[in-house]
Amino acid sequence: MTPAAILESALYVDDLDRAEEFYGETLGLTRIAKVEGRHVFFRCDDGVLLLFNADVTKVPPSADARLPVPPHGTRGAGHLCFKASGEEIEAWRHDLEKKGVAIEADFEWPNGGRSIYFRDPAGNSLEFAEARIWGL
Amino acid sequence: MTPAAILESALYVDDLDRAEEFYGETLGLTRIAKVEGRHVFFRCDDGVLLLFNADVTKVPPSADARLPVPPHGTRGAGHLCFKASGEEIEAWRHDLEKKGVAIEADFEWPNGGRSIYFRDPAGNSLEFAEARIWGL
Repeated sequence: MTPAAILESALYVDDLDRAEEFYGETLGLTRIAKVEGRHVFFRCDDGVLLLFNADVTKVPPSADARLPVPPHGTRGAGHLCFKASGEEIEAWRHDLEKKGVAIEADFEWPNGGRSIYFRDPAGNSLEFAEARIWGL
Repeated sequence: MTPAAILESALYVDDLDRAEEFYGETLGLTRIAKVEGRHVFFRCDDGVLLLFNADVTKVPPSADARLPVPPHGTRGAGHLCFKASGEEIEAWRHDLEKKGVAIEADFEWPNGGRSIYFRDPAGNSLEFAEARIWGL
């Protein structure tokens, strides 16, 4: 057996409102769930991007919780990469800069394929990359 | 514009060798890259799961780096969820328990769909869930 696919990827943020604005408006993802102070979730293709407030998710569920979701939560800059074609990366670079988002790095990988890197408001390292960097 | 898909999801681990064994042998993912002491990467469907040693990835690249990958790295338990059908979740539960991996939680969501939760050796919270919990 092998896992069929990654369904949910998670990042942790210090300000959910700023995260909601960034991922929803700057990146244009569709919000699918929100619990004030705890999380905001976005759909991305056939996956889900979870943005959590670690202060809340690190608290273990009560013994009688109806949904005993195990605790989790990190500190520091996480990383996530979105898939994009070469043309899309060029368009994203211009779009992000127009919106005031700094491009932290922009380079071609030795075996071909471009990546650009930038930060979300919480400092997580985000990337757009061509799938061919992984032979995909 | 909206990101086409999530290409890479990242978790941080304290022991890359144990992570490689867990994700490669216990979960059966295919390893696609490894840099001793820094990272081990696995393919999962049309995405990539990145496992990093944050002590190394938090160090900024040198000014003349050929590939100036921006620094990142977290502490604490991250979260990632793999997609599985109801039948697959049942099979994973038995398979993981047979391999000595404790199931930390196992429940149905209010709108239908089952999730099981367990930990990787670094303490990251992993999940198998039915895509229908997100209407996917």
